[in-house]
Amino acid sequence: MSGMAGLMVASPSLLKRINQRPFIPVAPSDEMPGVWKFSIGEPEKITPVSTRRFRPDTEGLKSLQPVEVCPVSVNGSVSERGTLIRIPLKKDELIYGLGLQLQSFQQRGLKKMLRVNADPEIDSGDSHAPVPFFVTTSGYSVMIDTARYATFYLGNKKRRPGAPLSDKPLSKGEDGWNALNGPYERLGLGEESDILVEIPRSEGVDVYVFAGPGMKEAIQRYNLYSGGGALPPRWGLGFWYRVHSDCTQDEMFGMANELRERKIPCDVLGLEPHWQTHSYSSSYVWSQRFPDPAAMLSKLKSKNYRVNMWLQAFVHPSSPIYNDLLPNSGDYEVWGGIVPDFITEEAKKIFSDYHIKTHIDIGISGYKADECDNSDFTGNWSFPEISRFPSGADGEQMHSLFGLKYQDAVLKAYEEKQVRTYGLVRSSGALAAPYPFVLYSDLYTHRNFIHAVAQSGFSGLLWTPEVRHAVSDTDLIRRLQTVVMSPLAMVNGWYLKNPPWKQIERKANNSGQFAANWEELESKCREIINLRMKLIPYIHAAFVRYHLTGLPPFRALVLDYPDDPKTSSISDQYMMGDSVMVAPVTAERTRRNVYLPAGIWYDFWTKEKIEGGVTITVEVPIDRIPVYIKEGSVLPLAKVTLHTEDPESRILTATVWGEGDAQITIYEDDGNWNPKLINTTLAWDSKRKKGKLEREGKPGGLLYSVETWENVM
Amino acid sequence: MSGMAGLMVASPSLLKRINQRPFIPVAPSDEMPGVWKFSIGEPEKITPVSTRRFRPDTEGLKSLQPVEVCPVSVNGSVSERGTLIRIPLKKDELIYGLGLQLQSFQQRGLKKMLRVNADPEIDSGDSHAPVPFFVTTSGYSVMIDTARYATFYLGNKKRRPGAPLSDKPLSKGEDGWNALNGPYERLGLGEESDILVEIPRSEGVDVYVFAGPGMKEAIQRYNLYSGGGALPPRWGLGFWYRVHSDCTQDEMFGMANELRERKIPCDVLGLEPHWQTHSYSSSYVWSQRFPDPAAMLSKLKSKNYRVNMWLQAFVHPSSPIYNDLLPNSGDYEVWGGIVPDFITEEAKKIFSDYHIKTHIDIGISGYKADECDNSDFTGNWSFPEISRFPSGADGEQMHSLFGLKYQDAVLKAYEEKQVRTYGLVRSSGALAAPYPFVLYSDLYTHRNFIHAVAQSGFSGLLWTPEVRHAVSDTDLIRRLQTVVMSPLAMVNGWYLKNPPWKQIERKANNSGQFAANWEELESKCREIINLRMKLIPYIHAAFVRYHLTGLPPFRALVLDYPDDPKTSSISDQYMMGDSVMVAPVTAERTRRNVYLPAGIWYDFWTKEKIEGGVTITVEVPIDRIPVYIKEGSVLPLAKVTLHTEDPESRILTATVWGEGDAQITIYEDDGNWNPKLINTTLAWDSKRKKGKLEREGKPGGLLYSVETWENVM
Repeated sequence: MSGMAGLMVASPSLLKRINQRPFIPVAPSDEMPGVWKFSIGEPEKITPVSTRRFRPDTEGLKSLQPVEVCPVSVNGSVSERGTLIRIPLKKDELIYGLGLQLQSFQQRGLKKMLRVNADPEIDSGDSHAPVPFFVTTSGYSVMIDTARYATFYLGNKKRRPGAPLSDKPLSKGEDGWNALNGPYERLGLGEESDILVEIPRSEGVDVYVFAGPGMKEAIQRYNLYSGGGALPPRWGLGFWYRVHSDCTQDEMFGMANELRERKIPCDVLGLEPHWQTHSYSSSYVWSQRFPDPAAMLSKLKSKNYRVNMWLQAFVHPSSPIYNDLLPNSGDYEVWGGIVPDFITEEAKKIFSDYHIKTHIDIGISGYKADECDNSDFTGNWSFPEISRFPSGADGEQMHSLFGLKYQDAVLKAYEEKQVRTYGLVRSSGALAAPYPFVLYSDLYTHRNFIHAVAQSGFSGLLWTPEVRHAVSDTDLIRRLQTVVMSPLAMVNGWYLKNPPWKQIERKANNSGQFAANWEELESKCREIINLRMKLIPYIHAAFVRYHLTGLPPFRALVLDYPDDPKTSSISDQYMMGDSVMVAPVTAERTRRNVYLPAGIWYDFWTKEKIEGGVTITVEVPIDRIPVYIKEGSVLPLAKVTLHTEDPESRILTATVWGEGDAQITIYEDDGNWNPKLINTTLAWDSKRKKGKLEREGKPGGLLYSVETWENVM
Repeated sequence: MSGMAGLMVASPSLLKRINQRPFIPVAPSDEMPGVWKFSIGEPEKITPVSTRRFRPDTEGLKSLQPVEVCPVSVNGSVSERGTLIRIPLKKDELIYGLGLQLQSFQQRGLKKMLRVNADPEIDSGDSHAPVPFFVTTSGYSVMIDTARYATFYLGNKKRRPGAPLSDKPLSKGEDGWNALNGPYERLGLGEESDILVEIPRSEGVDVYVFAGPGMKEAIQRYNLYSGGGALPPRWGLGFWYRVHSDCTQDEMFGMANELRERKIPCDVLGLEPHWQTHSYSSSYVWSQRFPDPAAMLSKLKSKNYRVNMWLQAFVHPSSPIYNDLLPNSGDYEVWGGIVPDFITEEAKKIFSDYHIKTHIDIGISGYKADECDNSDFTGNWSFPEISRFPSGADGEQMHSLFGLKYQDAVLKAYEEKQVRTYGLVRSSGALAAPYPFVLYSDLYTHRNFIHAVAQSGFSGLLWTPEVRHAVSDTDLIRRLQTVVMSPLAMVNGWYLKNPPWKQIERKANNSGQFAANWEELESKCREIINLRMKLIPYIHAAFVRYHLTGLPPFRALVLDYPDDPKTSSISDQYMMGDSVMVAPVTAERTRRNVYLPAGIWYDFWTKEKIEGGVTITVEVPIDRIPVYIKEGSVLPLAKVTLHTEDPESRILTATVWGEGDAQITIYEDDGNWNPKLINTTLAWDSKRKKGKLEREGKPGGLLYSVETWENVM
């Protein structure tokens, strides 16, 4: 039997290839300020960078603190298995990122295969939005520019004594440990372990390293290299309500009226699949439920409602764009529809032109781009990895890019209209920071949702912990509290004819049987949504900072407190902007532990002053979500209005936390594709006990004003 | 941006390769009677066939009904992604197999990536024992000879109109549907879908097709091609009891004595990890718990006990064989131990020689070969796929083969001793039928366990639904009932100091607090184990048939009743041999539905005669597992003895079911490596109401005899 021979290789030609490419250090080239690129072998043509829509924000990159020397070494090797990257790890170095990872937070010690999949209940790397990007506590970050299902071994594999560090078959006694001591070895840090990344089916890859000095800056650089963070229009930060999937035009008006009458703030209504003559796959043609969509949208606009439409990428034969897209689609169908090759300009244009004409021109403000992930755990409905697309991508590459390229097709339309959008998407990937789309999942654990708000910020992603259903009044309230402290505040009533606060039980809700206490519950929910409305100027400002500097508006505590080891595993608390720390509570609890990092904090509700560096246990009344304000902050709180177009939404109470001077800059925003922002600084003079609003640039239209200054000490 | 171009491919050289290798039908070569081989591209060197231990059973293959024409076409293609196989599927064709699939039964409509993994809770193809083999209701079976993590798309992907059937990037308007009408297209069956199999990282593969005419024969041919089915020694079919993992030599004697005193049959005691000075990874050196292992084994042997030892493949530096194995091991460690390259003769010999010397020579009868699977879902302790081994295998190939090659290393020892073994293993793969090892898992759902007994039979595998713990007396009884109707009847008391029937609760058990009713529960368990002892001659005969003809001794109903659509999804009933159908009950239920295929059946317990072709609902008393005997069967029942070496275990009551003539052949078995079998036929003459025992070959030593004939009508 040939298999018994001592030293076999796959084939002589492969051995040759392997020997030609030992596991060696790679020299980086300076890509941009604080960004280095390591090219290994022959990188593939279809990658996140090669298909990128947004250019790097070079101005933003230049404005960060300069770092001259690449902070880490990268070693690469190519064999018949693909490309293998090796990056050394310090003894105590921790790792974060890899895109949306719903089941884990700190990644060191884990193995992750970055496979796109809906509803990943296992911690294997499968994700709606895997991103081949990580950041470490040594203050650098790395992006592997691949659309392959790369496998990351994160400091958990140990080579045996005498094992050579080349990526080729072993022979007796070979010892290659010394081969690694190349010029880019990270000096003086020791080498306790390493990150190994395998990129299958590739003959090379580009690796990008982003400098710190801290984790925060390393992420900022990645986000700026991606093009800077997304900036939602102000209305996108208002409250969203998705109607029942069977909703008609008249029922839309009914819901619109009810929300206004019941004084529930709402900026955006969401339309579910049945607005179409055919969905799963999709026609994109208004059904008879909506006899006059233009008039409907116009009427809703007059009541200051935007409308967000459910969208699916798979094109049904009945769709007017089917024939045009057919030659620009992959070779496998999904749910009887074709899969547009959104990597090509042709497919994007056909898709975008049609949607402008039939939706956006009449007032659709954005989309919920659903089911653009893969389906290994959910019935396997999506296109196979063996698919082939006209762009040259195969199904594996397309899955890694599909969420992004689908967003590109939608953005193309809004760019043409020169207005911004804000929407939802179920899959995303690398370089996603500039995309004004927020991730969601059908996995529905409140604890996971909180985790995802904090965790997504490591990798240029946004997450909404949307409320769909609740098992109790308490569950509804607790989920809604988390939602209003997130990038997108939405109740998704797709299976409820009436708002959940009228009746949480599905059947009773749909038959109009409301709970006895519904007005009380509604009132509690209204209060929570009102809190969102108050916070919009502050959240918007955090997003502007994301846009301009790459700093995630929602982020884990470890980014702001990297030297505090207690923050390294906290994923049930997060920073919202620079001043607000949120510690949501799930329905099972009436109290929780909250860790307050060093410094002075104030309880948002009781105004109690707390010296940080401690874990406190707080009893949490049902009407409060634990929120802590950092000393030295100005937190502007807007007047509660029913929507963001109400001029009163710009009347502020400026709350000042602490004894010293403090200030914050917030922004007027015209909502255009290239936003015109007017910096508005609220500054508190502690000596004079007086605040001041200063505006840069020309005033015009609606403007922020401060009605009251409140100093909490 | 280059990514925007209309028609891109990975690289000009790859496009060339792709175009050189369109998706075309492949001509098969006659491999063996009823076995065809399709060679596509350049198959890899490390595969199940190239590293096989057992030769095909050509005599067995010749004895099956001849089939002259290959029953199915195979199309193949090689691209930069790897090798792609396409096999057409009839409209109503169903698919079974793919190795151990704990979460699904019929496979059509699913996608499976055959990745080796412990405890696969998701139905993604991950498995302790994935096998790239399937059988369909069209009466053929297919093995893909690969050690890669192949992906199977099982009739669930539809090509879009106009999509070419070549495995290359699409261009507008291309249409390749006709390219498939090659000479091996399956004629007259229509082509509603297909099975697509992608073998990553390969430039070709061999595909083996096994003829029917039925599914049963197609599986028999695969098992015979594998080398024929395993034949356990008679003692292996007795009852097994694994002791507490902390057990000492004296405690072993204690358990051995207790079982004999309490009249609980037992042939095999299992020793857990702590027999070693170091496990996880392993030293293979007896610890001080066992001051005189040879004397212990000798004493246990004198009481007719065999001993099975827990074993792990990863070799700790303290092991006497560490230094010798070091150059014959992979480049990554597991739990601080090296991973022997069991594909090489050197590693097998070092491992086997040592185990002969220190264990087998002093009486160890077999091993439980643990943790030889992979660990994506279980903490990721195993070697990475990027590992390299001296044989030329990488970690992916080694994972697919590791269970098998580890078994090879153990078998090498028993072959040298020329005695048979029977043991346990946590991973297996292709061509496994001849391996006398039974699979198990830490997943522990009784329903899954029943499913696995039925499902494993599709792919040359054996499964034990071992009892480890129980949540109630009923759970213990119900699990034990399934265990005695399985390939290996074992209670695994690794965390219990006393048998579970004395106390099911762990803490109380270990502190010697027995349940008030323990003698009653013990008595019930004894009765169940007694049933096993009665059935050994019958089960052994079913294994002989497996050995000689490849027919699985435990198998799903659909194999015996392929034309009955009701059997197509039944995985909670199974055939044990040709005459006995088992329908286990889980603890949650007191009654269950049982489907009886057409024909006359008898209730084993009540002797009730039932006309089949119906689903019956049966109330199941706690002391009975539903068992049905086929009309026309002779079921020999042995005298209950405490072990299989008791001469009384060969005294039989021959039960005859039905009104007509009937017979069965059972076998004397000397237990040697090449078993000497004496056919012993029990024949019932219905006219004379008289039975007869006829023996072929020379009698010698202990022989079966019939004490009583009983006719059930």
